[in-house]
Amino acid sequence: MTQIFDNPADFADEALDGFVAANRGYVARVDGGVVRSTEIPAGQVALVVGGGSGHYPAFAGLVGPGLAAGSACGNMFASPAAGQVYRVAKAANAGGGVLLSYGNYAGDVLHFGQAQLRLNAEGIETRTVLVTDDIASAPLDQIEKRRGIAGDLTVFKIAGAAAEAGLSLDEVERLAIKTNHRTRSLGVAFDGCTLPGASEPLFHVPAGQMSLGLGIHGEPGISEHPMPTASELAELLVSRLLEDKPDDAGDRVVAIVNGLGTVKYDELFLLFGKIEKLLIAANLTVVEPECGELVTSLDMSGLSLTLLWLDDELEQFWAAPADTPAFRKGNTAPRARRELSSAEDTAAEETEKATAASADLGRLAAAVLAQVRDVVVEHEAELGDLDAIAGDGDHGIGMRRGVDAAAAAGEQNAAAGTSVERVLTAAGEAWSERAGGTSGALWGTAVMAAGLALGNRDSYAAGDASAAVSAFSNAITELGKAEPGDKTMVDALLPFRDAFKDAFDGGASLTGALTTAAAAANEAARRTADLRPLKGRARPLAEKSLGHPDPGAVSFGLIAERVATYLASDAADSTPAASHMASTAGNGATE
Amino acid sequence: MTQIFDNPADFADEALDGFVAANRGYVARVDGGVVRSTEIPAGQVALVVGGGSGHYPAFAGLVGPGLAAGSACGNMFASPAAGQVYRVAKAANAGGGVLLSYGNYAGDVLHFGQAQLRLNAEGIETRTVLVTDDIASAPLDQIEKRRGIAGDLTVFKIAGAAAEAGLSLDEVERLAIKTNHRTRSLGVAFDGCTLPGASEPLFHVPAGQMSLGLGIHGEPGISEHPMPTASELAELLVSRLLEDKPDDAGDRVVAIVNGLGTVKYDELFLLFGKIEKLLIAANLTVVEPECGELVTSLDMSGLSLTLLWLDDELEQFWAAPADTPAFRKGNTAPRARRELSSAEDTAAEETEKATAASADLGRLAAAVLAQVRDVVVEHEAELGDLDAIAGDGDHGIGMRRGVDAAAAAGEQNAAAGTSVERVLTAAGEAWSERAGGTSGALWGTAVMAAGLALGNRDSYAAGDASAAVSAFSNAITELGKAEPGDKTMVDALLPFRDAFKDAFDGGASLTGALTTAAAAANEAARRTADLRPLKGRARPLAEKSLGHPDPGAVSFGLIAERVATYLASDAADSTPAASHMASTAGNGATE
Repeated sequence: MTQIFDNPADFADEALDGFVAANRGYVARVDGGVVRSTEIPAGQVALVVGGGSGHYPAFAGLVGPGLAAGSACGNMFASPAAGQVYRVAKAANAGGGVLLSYGNYAGDVLHFGQAQLRLNAEGIETRTVLVTDDIASAPLDQIEKRRGIAGDLTVFKIAGAAAEAGLSLDEVERLAIKTNHRTRSLGVAFDGCTLPGASEPLFHVPAGQMSLGLGIHGEPGISEHPMPTASELAELLVSRLLEDKPDDAGDRVVAIVNGLGTVKYDELFLLFGKIEKLLIAANLTVVEPECGELVTSLDMSGLSLTLLWLDDELEQFWAAPADTPAFRKGNTAPRARRELSSAEDTAAEETEKATAASADLGRLAAAVLAQVRDVVVEHEAELGDLDAIAGDGDHGIGMRRGVDAAAAAGEQNAAAGTSVERVLTAAGEAWSERAGGTSGALWGTAVMAAGLALGNRDSYAAGDASAAVSAFSNAITELGKAEPGDKTMVDALLPFRDAFKDAFDGGASLTGALTTAAAAANEAARRTADLRPLKGRARPLAEKSLGHPDPGAVSFGLIAERVATYLASDAADSTPAASHMASTAGNGATE
Repeated sequence: MTQIFDNPADFADEALDGFVAANRGYVARVDGGVVRSTEIPAGQVALVVGGGSGHYPAFAGLVGPGLAAGSACGNMFASPAAGQVYRVAKAANAGGGVLLSYGNYAGDVLHFGQAQLRLNAEGIETRTVLVTDDIASAPLDQIEKRRGIAGDLTVFKIAGAAAEAGLSLDEVERLAIKTNHRTRSLGVAFDGCTLPGASEPLFHVPAGQMSLGLGIHGEPGISEHPMPTASELAELLVSRLLEDKPDDAGDRVVAIVNGLGTVKYDELFLLFGKIEKLLIAANLTVVEPECGELVTSLDMSGLSLTLLWLDDELEQFWAAPADTPAFRKGNTAPRARRELSSAEDTAAEETEKATAASADLGRLAAAVLAQVRDVVVEHEAELGDLDAIAGDGDHGIGMRRGVDAAAAAGEQNAAAGTSVERVLTAAGEAWSERAGGTSGALWGTAVMAAGLALGNRDSYAAGDASAAVSAFSNAITELGKAEPGDKTMVDALLPFRDAFKDAFDGGASLTGALTTAAAAANEAARRTADLRPLKGRARPLAEKSLGHPDPGAVSFGLIAERVATYLASDAADSTPAASHMASTAGNGATE
């Protein structure tokens, strides 16, 4: 039961403020998370970690010399938005490039990925190493699909030590990849955790049962067992991890027993003692183990065992000093405090001279966004109900939050006469940041991509609008990585894209092609009722979802339809922007 | 729910083994607890802390350079036995004397006190500073009656730093006393904790309620409140502590927000942020705060706020480096590993040449102990039921464990022909160690005291037996500090002592006086039904206890009666020891 708060909506933010207040010698607050409050030597690689809040000491508790340079901190169990990751990384960067490392979850992959694109575009060389240690989440031959759990710590620790040693971004990345490939974890859960303000746990494990491999947010496990003795549990965890050991495993291992929240220290120590004996019996040497709460999940009842098979270089970096609020080893050299005022000032915008055509189009784009907001508001409850069938029921409210912010940002920029590029990138960024979650990141990135495609030009033709539709669609398929049939918004998006292209290339007007495409999207969204979800949060409840369409596909269809209807209406047709576009009809057609 | 174990009875022991396995760079196991595994400079004062298990990182997690030299570790929530404290202190001692410091609980005071007597008797200068920070447990003018909770950390930290700085035992003691007098804590509880193997929490707080000042084992609090917001809670804790501030309080304070087990990190940080703002608003400067799990109570839902008002010397020692498994500050110099084999060998016994008379009396004493065991076994269930009315129901099983061990130790020594002194000190030590808790410590110490009074003499008279009865009785009143009418075993003991003295001084035989005294004890034990408990664990449930006699008084009466009956029987009268005693009758009488 999470119960210390004023307003649940402010929980993550206020907790982060308090964390910084209690640890000023280590961390400073920046918009989006925390960075070290002490000097980072110039040219050192900055390891930036992060993820949802509620996992302390992951991730903000691991910021300090010898470990992370910064942490992007999302809302409770929700990925930080791309802008948050971007700003934290920018404040953490010391000129040696940035390594982003985090657990392999769809929302984080989206947002960190988007931030990486932006950092690289600005000339801050940025790489990513995903942590995929949870052997319960996919078979060994699909290791890249595994989730990240407490193995975060081994990857972060070794990458952080390598950065501290002054190694290059290439080398830090190589060591992080190697550590991840030699790290295996397996967790068990005895009961779920309760989000601030909720009266019921996010998930349950039946009383007297233990769920093997259940994820730290309730993601599905391998099997259920009657509550074992400590000796049986040690045997189970050790034997499963040893079966999954890496090809090049040696005989020296780091062992980490991690408590998820309410399995307390004495219990963890008792289990560690039994695990250590089993590892020794398997002819392994246990090197500098850890036993405690290292990656938690609020007040979840559960624990995990992580093994990292060392080689000489990994052992050296594992044993190296680190000094963070929640993780210390050895002695690090004292650090001077860092002046952060300039680093924090990362949101300064360059001034822009918008063309008349682009400003006109920007106003039209803002008007379209207002329509998108209206249709989402009208259907918010319906989308929420649909999502509740096999998901967490927040699709309506998430879309609402995102689109409210996007419409407001669009309106503000349009009123200031900025380019369509600026209107849509600001709106997309606002959407990502405020909506949170996967759909927010996808919509935000897609809107930004459309804006970047339209740019700030002297004139526009219908072909430019078509290019923007492609950019929008590509952003979603590239970032989301969902396949057709996975029961996601992609199942509505691809029919939309294809129908639009067919119609437009076949000579239809922009609005005609959009109308045709929107109908195709709506029809495809309805057909997702026949699909089983293979990706995203609905996966654990695949059976329940059968017979109901995917909420993300439905909202896409609704929005497409509203945009097409609006652009075909007199209201849109009478805008100055419409005249720019009307100069050519379909792609090369003569109509 | 505490659920990771094989056999609940082995929980504390196996957890401690695992803790040592996970922290070999810091600690080594000794019989009774842990000591540093690294060198302690010769002549340094050894701070020895301890208490019941289940409070990690208190107390074993605080052993290392700059903090404790050793920790005596009792069973779950139960004081370590005097022998445990003694052995840990002896292994931790580096020649500079020992400071024992621990929270003010009756069982701990008894056992640590007994150990202190023994250490001083052996020439290891030993002092004690009790931690009494919990403002909910007694008013400010009775600060010495307050319990110790998370304020342990400030006292231990500053005493440990002073010891590390090479200060004398006088100075370390002075600083610890000063720190305790400037430390105030107040806790709140939202729900109780569950002991290993138990299916129900040890205590409950009604759902939706918060108990202010409830102790970490369920000791009574001040008041109950509906669950407050975080801001209200911060306001409540800060205002209550500021009202209780020490006379010489300055404007620099250490603030410690401590979680008791299942109030998790984000919640603690959120609360800390609000508390810090209130302290700043009260014109206080917050110096190097702590926020986390520092003194827990298994999976108890609750937290506490501790304030230490600093002066210059305390601030210096608070800020000094420390390096322990669970608490680190700054950088300590690396330490070499310590050779522990000789230090661990503290139980070597000197050889003894028992006199014939003393060996005869030793065999009689062993036979008496066997009778004591029999009467406890016969009444074990009844004593447990009686204790369950207003206590935790373990009096029967605790007495049984203690007396089984005492009788076995007595028998073993008697068979080896040792003196009555050796028979009874061994039995008393075994009783203390195995029974645990207050009654175990009192009985063990009293039996030891009787043995020391009888010694290893060439001859014995009935007056020696009378002196042994006095020594037995004095040990309990001195160590237990209960007053007549507090509803403890003292309410049966004092009538026994007085009736014995009256009868024996009046000319009765030893067995006659004992028989009279036992009857008085039984009668007095029955009358405790009219009393309200004022001391000990039954205090929270005072009302329930009315109408039922005190289990400790009842067991004392039963044992006294059995001993008197046995000594008056033919079986005892025919022993060689009886002839020694029979040489004189009552004290100076002519019968």
